[in-house]
Amino acid sequence: MARLSVIGLGPGDATLLAPLALAALTRAQAVAGYTTYLKLLDPALLAGKRIIESGMTAEMARVRAALASADAGVETALVCGGDAGVYGLASLAYELAELDGLSGRVEIEVVPGIPALAAAAALLGAPLTHDFACVSLSDLLTPWAVIEKRIALATKADFVLVIYNPRSRRRREHLPKALEIMATIRGSAIPVGLVRNAYREGQSVAVTTLAELDVETVDMLSILVVGNASTRMVDGKLVTPRGYLDKYAES
Amino acid sequence: MARLSVIGLGPGDATLLAPLALAALTRAQAVAGYTTYLKLLDPALLAGKRIIESGMTAEMARVRAALASADAGVETALVCGGDAGVYGLASLAYELAELDGLSGRVEIEVVPGIPALAAAAALLGAPLTHDFACVSLSDLLTPWAVIEKRIALATKADFVLVIYNPRSRRRREHLPKALEIMATIRGSAIPVGLVRNAYREGQSVAVTTLAELDVETVDMLSILVVGNASTRMVDGKLVTPRGYLDKYAES
Repeated sequence: MARLSVIGLGPGDATLLAPLALAALTRAQAVAGYTTYLKLLDPALLAGKRIIESGMTAEMARVRAALASADAGVETALVCGGDAGVYGLASLAYELAELDGLSGRVEIEVVPGIPALAAAAALLGAPLTHDFACVSLSDLLTPWAVIEKRIALATKADFVLVIYNPRSRRRREHLPKALEIMATIRGSAIPVGLVRNAYREGQSVAVTTLAELDVETVDMLSILVVGNASTRMVDGKLVTPRGYLDKYAES
Repeated sequence: MARLSVIGLGPGDATLLAPLALAALTRAQAVAGYTTYLKLLDPALLAGKRIIESGMTAEMARVRAALASADAGVETALVCGGDAGVYGLASLAYELAELDGLSGRVEIEVVPGIPALAAAAALLGAPLTHDFACVSLSDLLTPWAVIEKRIALATKADFVLVIYNPRSRRRREHLPKALEIMATIRGSAIPVGLVRNAYREGQSVAVTTLAELDVETVDMLSILVVGNASTRMVDGKLVTPRGYLDKYAES
């Protein structure tokens, strides 16, 4: 059966691309992906392959082109940033294969990668070592009321929050609203980490608080991590204790 | 300055270990880790290194031994399964370094890996392509009341739920309670994915529903993924739609 591999590239640097993903890319005869992600790959890796490029908002066309390529018997890879299954295109591949009658004709394999949440957390220190929730602030496909509700309930439940797509040029008002919800419930002194371009050119890492975060420094390439009630700064790093020291204080 | 690298090994298979983690392991003169994880590594990789092994419940001693090794000028690696920052030992390393007066003497670097949530999701299909929350059911360090509250609020907020440490021999009653909370709020027909030993020997992947999940098949090596209200089965896979097809139904 023809195969479509949906591959998470991780942050984009070759040192964070697992051998399984590299092998799937190497084997592919055609590679589909958002232009920005394809540019992160070693050009030698793409040499001789058919490239199915497209822009950010052409996800449906890109996935359909990748499925059609695989259905034509061409070993095809569909690449995503981070992990293909975390806000990635993996679900759309399954949905469109079903809708277009390709189920049972194209085998879809998801190859995991290092998600942006793990890359950002590693650069910040250790903010995700306890329960956390991921929320995207993009209301392109999700009503804003649903997003607001998720932020409020996750904050009440004292989850660490990982915010994907925190701010775009079109959506400047969402992030301040989300920060206000979190500050009202959890207090504005809560530590916040901001990572842009993790493990890529132009990387920046900053740690601040809900009160002091300058939203102008946040864009779509950023991941925001908002601590829970226990998260604190340790030696310049953002750390969410798991609870060992409380339990074994004398050890 | 002496360095301690806290390294996520991913699921354990060498094909899912990123080059950055492999380089840090290769460079290390001493390697600390839970015995089970060290056994997943190629023995050749560990040859000639000092091995600081310990059991599952000796986390504090293991991290302290690793910090002491680094403080003695030995390039040291502390390895974790999955990602070192997702329920890993990274936070404990920062906390103990501070407590033991090693801040500024030992540099702690976190090397990200593929977390269990991403490995499980890839094998199940695409359950995490929308907002999700991770909750550990282990009440060793977290009161059960807090865990229950997080599950209830995350379910009300319609997050997909990723359940870590779902069931141990000691804690048989927690998982049924958690499932009941989710079923009461979200209905018992919600699809559930169960992955054991992702990308390792003995791997098993199953898809069922909240009503039909047999808790006897769940253990500490399992990751459970509980769908949100939109998650459904597509061609045998667990898929959470991002919403493209609702928005662009005619494209």
